[in-house]
Amino acid sequence: MSSPDTSTDTAWLDDTEAQAWRSFLRMHTQLMARLGRELQTDSDLSLADFDVLVQLTDIPGGRIRVLELARALRWEKSRMSHHLARMVKRELIVREECANDRRGSFVAITPAGRAAIRTAAPRHVRTVRRLVFDAITPEQVAALAGLSEEVLRQLEEEPVD
Amino acid sequence: MSSPDTSTDTAWLDDTEAQAWRSFLRMHTQLMARLGRELQTDSDLSLADFDVLVQLTDIPGGRIRVLELARALRWEKSRMSHHLARMVKRELIVREECANDRRGSFVAITPAGRAAIRTAAPRHVRTVRRLVFDAITPEQVAALAGLSEEVLRQLEEEPVD
Repeated sequence: MSSPDTSTDTAWLDDTEAQAWRSFLRMHTQLMARLGRELQTDSDLSLADFDVLVQLTDIPGGRIRVLELARALRWEKSRMSHHLARMVKRELIVREECANDRRGSFVAITPAGRAAIRTAAPRHVRTVRRLVFDAITPEQVAALAGLSEEVLRQLEEEPVD
Repeated sequence: MSSPDTSTDTAWLDDTEAQAWRSFLRMHTQLMARLGRELQTDSDLSLADFDVLVQLTDIPGGRIRVLELARALRWEKSRMSHHLARMVKRELIVREECANDRRGSFVAITPAGRAAIRTAAPRHVRTVRRLVFDAITPEQVAALAGLSEEVLRQLEEEPVD
């Protein structure tokens, strides 16, 4: 922690901050619910499917260790394996076990998976444009990028206990 | 949808927007993962527990219909009932079935639930302050509130299909 917790009256959030925090949380929740619904309707994928497929198309060979994927997406191991099992069943990905490798198994995107993300991505991006970027000013876009980077920097600076 | 999808070359995101969008998503994911971990360590609650308990303390009587709670949190029904079952087992809430009421059962916060959220909330707020509000400027706080409100307004304006 950057500032040790030495007092019980550590500064709370003032009204402006509390309001910003609540709006941010509500916005993210409602936006993701809507994006998920539209993605499902438009492309028959969930946001989770989409995130997995994007990760896989972003790497050469379209193949990654399950553990590494879980780390990239910040998913719990159990959520990861349940979700991947469903995607295997739908033939969007395949799982490649390696019994003789302690670092664990791989997943790889299938041609069907590539086709699915190729169709879904532009539709999804259009939805994001409509719901987010058409609704805010260029200054707000810049502020969103800037404050997101600051928080990410703060998270990186503080070692996890 | 406000704008029908009539063309295939609908505006994509420019580099600045794409960068802002990626940073926003990464920031939210990493921030929530960290907040969840610290909440668990500090107060033995998950973020999901926290959100449920906050909803229940925010209403008079600390009692709400399960369906209404699911709507407020934007959770799927199955996630809701699994999660509530775990919280009942831990005695943070009780479930009150009403067989003769088609609008479904209620959940209510217990004294143990109230004690848990009373202890957890100030610690959680301190973490939020440290990770978010100490890392950004007052202008960024204002921008966060402003752009969140704009996106929420956009979501409200567009009827769900």
